[in-house]
Amino acid sequence: MVYLTRRYRFAASHRLHNPGLAPEENARVYGKCNNPYGHGHNYVLEVTMAGPVDSGTGMAFDLAALDGVVQREVLDRLDHTHLNLDVDLFKTVVPTTENVCMEVYGVLRKHLESLPSRGQARLHKVRLEETNSNYFEYEG
Amino acid sequence: MVYLTRRYRFAASHRLHNPGLAPEENARVYGKCNNPYGHGHNYVLEVTMAGPVDSGTGMAFDLAALDGVVQREVLDRLDHTHLNLDVDLFKTVVPTTENVCMEVYGVLRKHLESLPSRGQARLHKVRLEETNSNYFEYEG
Amino acid sequence: MVYLTRRYRFAASHRLHNPGLAPEENARVYGKCNNPYGHGHNYVLEVTMAGPVDSGTGMAFDLAALDGVVQREVLDRLDHTHLNLDVDLFKTVVPTTENVCMEVYGVLRKHLESLPSRGQARLHKVRLEETNSNYFEYEG
Amino acid sequence: MVYLTRRYRFAASHRLHNPGLAPEENARVYGKCNNPYGHGHNYVLEVTMAGPVDSGTGMAFDLAALDGVVQREVLDRLDHTHLNLDVDLFKTVVPTTENVCMEVYGVLRKHLESLPSRGQARLHKVRLEETNSNYFEYEG
Amino acid sequence: MVYLTRRYRFAASHRLHNPGLAPEENARVYGKCNNPYGHGHNYVLEVTMAGPVDSGTGMAFDLAALDGVVQREVLDRLDHTHLNLDVDLFKTVVPTTENVCMEVYGVLRKHLESLPSRGQARLHKVRLEETNSNYFEYEG
Amino acid sequence: MVYLTRRYRFAASHRLHNPGLAPEENARVYGKCNNPYGHGHNYVLEVTMAGPVDSGTGMAFDLAALDGVVQREVLDRLDHTHLNLDVDLFKTVVPTTENVCMEVYGVLRKHLESLPSRGQARLHKVRLEETNSNYFEYEG
Repeated sequence: MVYLTRRYRFAASHRLHNPGLAPEENARVYGKCNNPYGHGHNYVLEVTMAGPVDSGTGMAFDLAALDGVVQREVLDRLDHTHLNLDVDLFKTVVPTTENVCMEVYGVLRKHLESLPSRGQARLHKVRLEETNSNYFEYEG
Repeated sequence: MVYLTRRYRFAASHRLHNPGLAPEENARVYGKCNNPYGHGHNYVLEVTMAGPVDSGTGMAFDLAALDGVVQREVLDRLDHTHLNLDVDLFKTVVPTTENVCMEVYGVLRKHLESLPSRGQARLHKVRLEETNSNYFEYEG
Repeated sequence: MVYLTRRYRFAASHRLHNPGLAPEENARVYGKCNNPYGHGHNYVLEVTMAGPVDSGTGMAFDLAALDGVVQREVLDRLDHTHLNLDVDLFKTVVPTTENVCMEVYGVLRKHLESLPSRGQARLHKVRLEETNSNYFEYEG
Repeated sequence: MVYLTRRYRFAASHRLHNPGLAPEENARVYGKCNNPYGHGHNYVLEVTMAGPVDSGTGMAFDLAALDGVVQREVLDRLDHTHLNLDVDLFKTVVPTTENVCMEVYGVLRKHLESLPSRGQARLHKVRLEETNSNYFEYEG
Repeated sequence: MVYLTRRYRFAASHRLHNPGLAPEENARVYGKCNNPYGHGHNYVLEVTMAGPVDSGTGMAFDLAALDGVVQREVLDRLDHTHLNLDVDLFKTVVPTTENVCMEVYGVLRKHLESLPSRGQARLHKVRLEETNSNYFEYEG
Repeated sequence: MVYLTRRYRFAASHRLHNPGLAPEENARVYGKCNNPYGHGHNYVLEVTMAGPVDSGTGMAFDLAALDGVVQREVLDRLDHTHLNLDVDLFKTVVPTTENVCMEVYGVLRKHLESLPSRGQARLHKVRLEETNSNYFEYEG
């Protein structure tokens, strides 16, 4: 079993705000991340696949196929957007990096599983770096 | 003459859009950076001071004084904002990283010049990294 | 279960020396790290919390609370010190990065467990980078 | 149990090509990595040892011994080579980074196990970064 | 005048060898970089343009135009190649990173100058990083 | 004229303290960098040489010769030391990074100038990074 990790980048805005909470509570929980017009990040996304190495190709997974899925299902939807305003899911779910990370995992899992070429490889982990000081990981 | 550079970080949103241009022209010039709700970045700001080394302290500039000015005049104004909507200047000036870089230079120059402790040191350069793939520099 | 990692930095000196060993043995085991006056590093500390995501806030842990504990219990004690001379524990325990890493883990575990806001999250891992060429991890 | 990771670097060329496949199949599977004269990378190798911390030395493993084995068994064989043409194994095995990673793991495991000084430590993981965008990990 | 720098990456092989020198002289001058089958690197290319900021667009240069020229004239020619064997120029010129850097500068200068959209901007510098330990800069 | 930069690293301790100043003045000027037992850093040293490219070798300077001088005159003297206590110069000169940077420049200039192989190349700049947040440059 080899773990293969591929790194992608996207730039997006978000505002941390839960409409079900009072304004003071939002301010207390989210601090300056609750500022009304939002702010943004250069997100660094790492996608890790786990699988045996194919004895013919010497590869654990087809990187071009992985790139295609990530581009279409993640980057095309999230890059250069305001997550709260442009992405349907985050109109109702607070786009904390925890939630974005789990959403990316779910979307990738679904679309990678239906790839004809995936062999025995499976999605192992999604890691999402929000700033130079913090990142989040989800393994399902 | 020693050059001393200090690195700071802030997270902000922006939208590249010139209301004086037609929509198709905005789309052509700015591409996806013209998306209506904007997007964001982790900006990395480097401020370079040039000056002789004080023979008593062995220092070219008082870093604590520099940090104070940058915090008050730049980070407190730009961090965790949407530049177009939260910062007066960028309500009328397109917040390209070129323009943000020159604005930061101008503000720092003004406030650093009036510092009593600055001695012979002067602001030499401002460098602003927008993404892992590009950065801008301005020397006045 | 989401893993949230937060990165901190501190600068400190240390000398690797075990008074219970002969001088030649100290020299053999620690090499130039045994030089009498010590040397120093920019340590990079990563603290990983594991926990479910709160459905109200969308967060796995309160970062401000984590920052408070790390600042008070780790950075205030270790930053800008000579570990062997300024930190009680390392007057008798050799401050190898292995030992510093385990000590930081123990201190954080104790203080994070008593946080009223911690919910179901728990300390998962401490990672301490000593130089560009090596780092250490401890999971308890 | 502490995990100690040490980082090394080497520069090498490779060509991804399986002589058992038709030319069009090689082109389809490997893309531009199948170009006839190969291309190269600055590989970043991370070797992780796991072990208890020795109460006398405060260390989990003798880094100088690890450096010696990695230098002799990995860097001296792979650095500044064309993997397909200079390294016996890769004359018949396609030098994908998956295969290089597993080979490095196997070689290190064998030679680290026979080190007299290894105590209870064991090789835990080998991580090989091929480019800024992807890396591979193998744990045996 | 603002300096705008854009970062690109390519992977290539090279061998440092001057056929006009005796074998021992090649070995003495180039060391292991003279190994017969070559080795490779992940090159990091930074291209810096200097120019005034257009008051309409707020930009110093059209990044999409720059990307197009660099892709066509540099990356398409050098990426995933063996410089000595695949690139005409380096069949007779030793592909040291100094020479690659100057060649890239020359090619970019020529093609950027003939861009209709370049306005008053001009190529200021090319920086080419060969490894984590060295890089080269050329300003014409 | 090509600029060639080579990166080196060393780990050292220092204390910022001027015995000619009163204790309160030292505390005010240097803050926690004045703590009595000092602290330390992983310094990153970049040495830039400027010179024409030799048409025979394709190189601007002999890197092995540069490495030899830097190792002997800088790294062997400063690495794994407490600058104030182990290095003669810094027993009387405050080892701020400004001063260390100028001292390294002076030593390298002297020894590089007397290298028989230096041709027309000359030392252009020394850059010394003290932490992730600041660095210093000196060009003589």
